[in-house]
Amino acid sequence: MSRPTLDFYLEFASTYSYPAAMRIGALAAAAGVAVRWRPFLLGPIFKAQGWDNSPFNIYPAKGNYMWRDLDRICGRLELPFRRPDPFPQSSLLAARLAHVGLDEGWGEDFCRAVYAAEFADGRSISEEDVLADLVYDLGVAAESALARARSAEIKERLCATTAEAQARGVFGAPTFICADGELFWGHDRMAEALAWAVRPAGQPVIASA
Amino acid sequence: MSRPTLDFYLEFASTYSYPAAMRIGALAAAAGVAVRWRPFLLGPIFKAQGWDNSPFNIYPAKGNYMWRDLDRICGRLELPFRRPDPFPQSSLLAARLAHVGLDEGWGEDFCRAVYAAEFADGRSISEEDVLADLVYDLGVAAESALARARSAEIKERLCATTAEAQARGVFGAPTFICADGELFWGHDRMAEALAWAVRPAGQPVIASA
Repeated sequence: MSRPTLDFYLEFASTYSYPAAMRIGALAAAAGVAVRWRPFLLGPIFKAQGWDNSPFNIYPAKGNYMWRDLDRICGRLELPFRRPDPFPQSSLLAARLAHVGLDEGWGEDFCRAVYAAEFADGRSISEEDVLADLVYDLGVAAESALARARSAEIKERLCATTAEAQARGVFGAPTFICADGELFWGHDRMAEALAWAVRPAGQPVIASA
Repeated sequence: MSRPTLDFYLEFASTYSYPAAMRIGALAAAAGVAVRWRPFLLGPIFKAQGWDNSPFNIYPAKGNYMWRDLDRICGRLELPFRRPDPFPQSSLLAARLAHVGLDEGWGEDFCRAVYAAEFADGRSISEEDVLADLVYDLGVAAESALARARSAEIKERLCATTAEAQARGVFGAPTFICADGELFWGHDRMAEALAWAVRPAGQPVIASA
């Protein structure tokens, strides 16, 4: 029998996507769940809500809290954490490269490398040179990956993934959607999403709080 | 030695304040924490952010998710749940009555009764008659409680609590603030807030995820 799947919608500018991306591989393996990584862009979804910036910048009290909360979470999980500056970073090229990588077998490692560069190493993931370094470090030819990232095929794939996310009810990141359509928002809900994905049909899920 | 304290900022129109209010008494007792219930109004704080309605109404995708998420949480915690209609309900008189009750020793029971009426029983907590019933059921003279709720003293107390919340960085409900100023937002963070409140000074807290 094939493993249950969980769609993982991630955005490279999203802060809480960082711990989610770093942890989901191990947790999903332990739970017996196959994860489909779905890099998308929050910008168009936020724009539809009337925002032209991160809500964490628009609402400073919420933003201040988020940075402190993320620092606490990373401390507890023993993940290195450095606040990106500037924030948010442009995630467009990173997201396109991630789709190239997911097509070619190096996508998940690339996603983790982008988050580590941004949130642990203080590098600017908006810059092509930085992204090229990350691709190169995975043993992949950076020039051809970048060329493909700029192809119409990949641009359309990222647009389609973003439209798909919006159509399925995604309004933030990270978001997890089970095969039955059940949606979970936030790093806080990752364990619950994995538990839901493997629950027997028709059974209520009892997850840890 | 006196128990450590935790300030609990609650808003009667706030959905995630419902499970927090129903559970914090037992969890705080188990943790050895004294909770200061601080009923406040989110309206003025939301207004300062440019919102004149619940963000769950302003952003429908987020609102749809919240109702589903709250239903799952209540199911897991075996709390009855019915979606209030209309939403949000006016919480002004309930919050004033809560301040009367907290002054007179029946406040915490009243807060729980308001949340149960709103989220379990489908009653309208905007209505004076409903609130009078809840006060009466606690064995308290409803007429004098309502008269005091409308006094300048109590109106000012609620205003001051709201201003205090805003000054301390509260931007949503429920919010928990430890004696050292550490702030935790959301029902999701209640256990972490209680763990923080009792941790030895200078020690990092390791809470369950």
